Amino acid sequence: MSKISEKDVLVPLDVLSDFRDDYISNYMTATQESGRLMLFAGDQKIEHLNDDFYGDDIAAEDNDPEHLFRIAENGRIGVFATQLGLIARYGRDYPDLAYLVKMNSKTHLVKTTQSDPYSARLCGIDQLMEFKENSGLNIVGIGYTIYIGSEFEADMLAEAAQLIYEAHRFGLISVLWVYPRGQAVSDEKDAHLIAGATGTAACLNADFVKVNAPRAKDGQESAVLLKEAVQSAGRTKVVCAGGSNASPEEFLKELHKQLHISGVAGNATGRNIHQKPLDEAVRMCNAIYALTVHLAPIEEALKIYRGE
Amino acid sequence: MSKISEKDVLVPLDVLSDFRDDYISNYMTATQESGRLMLFAGDQKIEHLNDDFYGDDIAAEDNDPEHLFRIAENGRIGVFATQLGLIARYGRDYPDLAYLVKMNSKTHLVKTTQSDPYSARLCGIDQLMEFKENSGLNIVGIGYTIYIGSEFEADMLAEAAQLIYEAHRFGLISVLWVYPRGQAVSDEKDAHLIAGATGTAACLNADFVKVNAPRAKDGQESAVLLKEAVQSAGRTKVVCAGGSNASPEEFLKELHKQLHISGVAGNATGRNIHQKPLDEAVRMCNAIYALTVHLAPIEEALKIYRGE
Amino acid sequence: MSKISEKDVLVPLDVLSDFRDDYISNYMTATQESGRLMLFAGDQKIEHLNDDFYGDDIAAEDNDPEHLFRIAENGRIGVFATQLGLIARYGRDYPDLAYLVKMNSKTHLVKTTQSDPYSARLCGIDQLMEFKENSGLNIVGIGYTIYIGSEFEADMLAEAAQLIYEAHRFGLISVLWVYPRGQAVSDEKDAHLIAGATGTAACLNADFVKVNAPRAKDGQESAVLLKEAVQSAGRTKVVCAGGSNASPEEFLKELHKQLHISGVAGNATGRNIHQKPLDEAVRMCNAIYALTVHLAPIEEALKIYRGE
Amino acid sequence: MSKISEKDVLVPLDVLSDFRDDYISNYMTATQESGRLMLFAGDQKIEHLNDDFYGDDIAAEDNDPEHLFRIAENGRIGVFATQLGLIARYGRDYPDLAYLVKMNSKTHLVKTTQSDPYSARLCGIDQLMEFKENSGLNIVGIGYTIYIGSEFEADMLAEAAQLIYEAHRFGLISVLWVYPRGQAVSDEKDAHLIAGATGTAACLNADFVKVNAPRAKDGQESAVLLKEAVQSAGRTKVVCAGGSNASPEEFLKELHKQLHISGVAGNATGRNIHQKPLDEAVRMCNAIYALTVHLAPIEEALKIYRGE
Amino acid sequence: MSKISEKDVLVPLDVLSDFRDDYISNYMTATQESGRLMLFAGDQKIEHLNDDFYGDDIAAEDNDPEHLFRIAENGRIGVFATQLGLIARYGRDYPDLAYLVKMNSKTHLVKTTQSDPYSARLCGIDQLMEFKENSGLNIVGIGYTIYIGSEFEADMLAEAAQLIYEAHRFGLISVLWVYPRGQAVSDEKDAHLIAGATGTAACLNADFVKVNAPRAKDGQESAVLLKEAVQSAGRTKVVCAGGSNASPEEFLKELHKQLHISGVAGNATGRNIHQKPLDEAVRMCNAIYALTVHLAPIEEALKIYRGE
Repeated sequence: MSKISEKDVLVPLDVLSDFRDDYISNYMTATQESGRLMLFAGDQKIEHLNDDFYGDDIAAEDNDPEHLFRIAENGRIGVFATQLGLIARYGRDYPDLAYLVKMNSKTHLVKTTQSDPYSARLCGIDQLMEFKENSGLNIVGIGYTIYIGSEFEADMLAEAAQLIYEAHRFGLISVLWVYPRGQAVSDEKDAHLIAGATGTAACLNADFVKVNAPRAKDGQESAVLLKEAVQSAGRTKVVCAGGSNASPEEFLKELHKQLHISGVAGNATGRNIHQKPLDEAVRMCNAIYALTVHLAPIEEALKIYRGE
Repeated sequence: MSKISEKDVLVPLDVLSDFRDDYISNYMTATQESGRLMLFAGDQKIEHLNDDFYGDDIAAEDNDPEHLFRIAENGRIGVFATQLGLIARYGRDYPDLAYLVKMNSKTHLVKTTQSDPYSARLCGIDQLMEFKENSGLNIVGIGYTIYIGSEFEADMLAEAAQLIYEAHRFGLISVLWVYPRGQAVSDEKDAHLIAGATGTAACLNADFVKVNAPRAKDGQESAVLLKEAVQSAGRTKVVCAGGSNASPEEFLKELHKQLHISGVAGNATGRNIHQKPLDEAVRMCNAIYALTVHLAPIEEALKIYRGE
Repeated sequence: MSKISEKDVLVPLDVLSDFRDDYISNYMTATQESGRLMLFAGDQKIEHLNDDFYGDDIAAEDNDPEHLFRIAENGRIGVFATQLGLIARYGRDYPDLAYLVKMNSKTHLVKTTQSDPYSARLCGIDQLMEFKENSGLNIVGIGYTIYIGSEFEADMLAEAAQLIYEAHRFGLISVLWVYPRGQAVSDEKDAHLIAGATGTAACLNADFVKVNAPRAKDGQESAVLLKEAVQSAGRTKVVCAGGSNASPEEFLKELHKQLHISGVAGNATGRNIHQKPLDEAVRMCNAIYALTVHLAPIEEALKIYRGE
Repeated sequence: MSKISEKDVLVPLDVLSDFRDDYISNYMTATQESGRLMLFAGDQKIEHLNDDFYGDDIAAEDNDPEHLFRIAENGRIGVFATQLGLIARYGRDYPDLAYLVKMNSKTHLVKTTQSDPYSARLCGIDQLMEFKENSGLNIVGIGYTIYIGSEFEADMLAEAAQLIYEAHRFGLISVLWVYPRGQAVSDEKDAHLIAGATGTAACLNADFVKVNAPRAKDGQESAVLLKEAVQSAGRTKVVCAGGSNASPEEFLKELHKQLHISGVAGNATGRNIHQKPLDEAVRMCNAIYALTVHLAPIEEALKIYRGE
Repeated sequence: MSKISEKDVLVPLDVLSDFRDDYISNYMTATQESGRLMLFAGDQKIEHLNDDFYGDDIAAEDNDPEHLFRIAENGRIGVFATQLGLIARYGRDYPDLAYLVKMNSKTHLVKTTQSDPYSARLCGIDQLMEFKENSGLNIVGIGYTIYIGSEFEADMLAEAAQLIYEAHRFGLISVLWVYPRGQAVSDEKDAHLIAGATGTAACLNADFVKVNAPRAKDGQESAVLLKEAVQSAGRTKVVCAGGSNASPEEFLKELHKQLHISGVAGNATGRNIHQKPLDEAVRMCNAIYALTVHLAPIEEALKIYRGE
């Protein structure tokens, strides 16, 4: 198991001197002293409405928002990412979690065929810092989604740049979700385009950028093609979205490849965890954590997931 | 009759320490120490122009805005929700009411076939707090309408998040009206979509979310289908819109089901009350109140309504 | 002749305590201690460009903006409503008038068939109060136009609510011009729709609302149909627009009916006054004033107009 | 030669008391103590890109921006109007000019057939006053263009009103360029419409309004038709745009008519001056100046232009 | 080799007195005491996504963002222009570079056939100055792109004017990228239009303006046609974009012509440098530097590039 020390943390220069130690501390917490990020994503109640939480093949308990918090509390994770509203309502009973506040969200009702996507900032960094102090919760960073290729791209690029600058000032880490989407985008999962997405995140000073894994193409598998994006992101680290509906085993194997072939620095997983009953969800978390933070072999992760 | 005590109130963490007691007090007032909300909705003079106040089957006295205040004064309610303007003009003569300020409103003139709905913020929380102090009125909270699925959804999500954050800071409670509406929405009363609406409200930190009851489907009645939305809202409590033109008896029976089958925590009723003459409107209020706050049996509520 | 006293003035609760006396004083001045408003409207130089001021059947002197001020000075009126710019330029020579500043204006060049109407705020209340102090002029209130049913309705509802709140704080009275207009509006002069317009003004806390008189319908004359709007406005008082091109006698008779049948609290007249030569315009003012403020019989008003 | 004295200057009431003397001084400078304005317009480098500065029939030296400053320095003018950027870059070498800062500008690339015109504010009055103090230059006023009839008219009306209010506060004079333009405008040079433009400027409190001279019609020449606009502007003074490509003699004769028949108070000329070589341009300035400021006879102006 | 001294620097008058020395120092640094600018452009990771950094004919190492910094450190340049985000992340290891912060950026996904281009401001000058102090890095200026002819031109003209004004206040130099682009623009490389672009930059007070070299036309070569733009820019100096895919030799010869025939004051080159391996890229930098800063003969530059 590889560990990093505080001096390994590359503090971006927009972190104010007084908040350097906070940044390092937040970074170490989020990455569990590994430099890699296991992000448990729980922002889908707006993003996908109730489609991810209720239906066939979804554990009944997932319809209760507290299911997310129970998983985050019982499973091993780096950070739990969700909207400030949910944190404000459940945080008192889950005071030990490391929270990453998802700063913008949209529903999936308006399709790209009707109008290009835009997701607006729900709160500001000043409010976040006030909330952090008032609540005593451990807010370690922020997340924000950009849709490059949308006609509203300019608004999101500007909001992201502003939020990261202000978040860094106060020592918070930043994660960008960057998705090519809009009428101008013909293939959202093109590896070269995804490399553009991670490069954009680098220029916006994100500490981590979450992208979808590229589609396999021309006989090259996704994890190989993803290397272009990891390299183009430079010091901004790439984490992969969990994606949709692989089996747990396939999911873990793909993540193992991403970590060891592509060179990604983690993952951001939601549905593949929380749609399971608590016990299984916790085991899934722990398996992902072992792969990501401990760089565990795939067999060990599979055992953890199976509860062996 | 079930009562809650102050320690049962779950204060969201964006309420500033200095205003915790105000929040608890406002919550206890609004729910009449029951944890459930009987909201008398009087914001339709903008929302529906004069269609709800003048016409066949509408009591003549309903055309006078003061009718709303007379009902609120004489009937039993939790809060009276209307625009700040009406409160500023009549409040001096109705100083004992618990007011919930409806922060945005639109007319129904522009239809969804022409343009997606947007309803803008009419005032800010700083102004509201100034007004509260200057007037001495008992403002206990705010209300705001979001149309998810509208092309202007992003504006409303952001305004709602901002208003709730600022309102909570000062101890005000918040109620979101969340309606799926727009060219992208084919069935506004789909139970699964409504569950997405209440989940969205939870992520925005609303204390209560008002939705329309779902349409019965596949042999399942509305009150059963509504359970998905109640659960997906988690600690944000669901209240049902009074809807359009059921008979009073049907209305009360449906509400009883919503309370006892669906698990909603109240109702938000306007037209079904204020379109009646004062005396009948007051009895209707009291019947709804008994069902909601006292969890009275349906027979008792019907008696109250009939004045027996 | 009916008079009101200062204690009859219902001060809205958003008037700050320190400015209650100013509000009462402004209200008494504007209504000439009658509670009714004779508003001389002079904002058409932007609204209608030069169409109202130059042409056949228009007195040549009306093309000079000072004509408006001369009428306001020599005739009896409640308030003279025009843009701040004209007031700033002529006010020094007309220091004794009671001014109501029209806060927004648009030209009539872009028609509804091309684009829905929007009229933007030209200045803010802070600037207005600074101007009032710097100039020493007697600014008693503000006016603002809303087009309900326009696709830009939300902007105007919000601006109006803000302006009225801020104006009231400092004791200024407020008059809303509310017109249903836009592609969604098929009949701007429908009585029921106009009642919606006055109800909207009530919810926005306007002291007075100016509407067009409804079109006669189904054998009911305009003044009778207007009663719905007067009632739906509640404590917000209704004043009627002077309208277009009736003869002076017809105009005065219609106003008399509006006052005595509909129950309106005044009128807002522009073209029917200022398109006449000064002497006749002054007599027209005085006739309207007598009807409105003194509730004079129609015969007396006609005599005044005729200079008998 | 007619002169005015300081007491003849009608100071608008939005000029703060402390800046009354500045306003009077700026007004006297700009009008060269005549009450009439000879404005040398040099804002076309954005408005018309390089079309006005390079090409057949244009003096080669006009392609150097400094040509404008050389003319302003050597010729007799009231004010030199251009963007702040050029002033900041050349002002150090031309410290004695009276500058009027053109606050907005657009290129002519997007035609009205594609989209209605909008020209945005480039800087604010606070910045202008800071610049004035920091540079020591003699900034006497501001200019701003409004396109009435554009779908963006509301934005420009509001920006103009704000800029004039703020400029006046600090004693700066204001000149509005008002052009009817947009898909809704069928005849930009209709005399009646131009009278609406000057009336709009009056309502916005402009000290001077620049319009295009109307098109001759029905046997009436332009200078006669223009009288409607001069009168409708009231105390706001009208200056005429130099227009396009008349011969110098025709240009001067037309200006003489505008001054003596229409009653305009000056002119705003650009291309007709700066497209000439320096010496001729200076003589053209001086001829215009003689007509405008000295009300010289046309023969004298022609002699000046010809260098006789 | 020509040198300028500090007194040769024409400080624009919006530079505050306290920051005059900073401006002169920044200018001398950026131009390497030559008055001419060798700008190494590294903002394409957003502008062109990964198309400029990965692919056939591109050095593999160019896919790592640090390649840009390594070139800037090892080659001779005036300034290195890139987004604040990259500077914040790599600056600690490259503390001796002179940075020019590119303030706006957009991707190239949405084409002009779909929607006109708009590129939004990512941060403000206050943040930049805070960053400069906090990081200790040598930020000497800002860059901003305007698309004239775009339907969003007004937004960019205003943002550019604001950024330059604020940057100058604090002694930073400014470079505008000005490109005619949009549905209204039929030929982006028309020499006359490009002269309009440089003139626009002059009116906005840019110190340098980067444009594309015009297309040869009617038997006149690009460098000759470019003279119109150099002259129309006046004291704002013109630098040429490196363009696309000439051979290095052709590139250097064209630059030599631009310097000696057109009279440009430098160049802004990106792809023609960074797509090469480090060693070759450094030699290319040095060759460009020699041409630009030392006005070296073309043979010398070619030798430098070839490492002879």
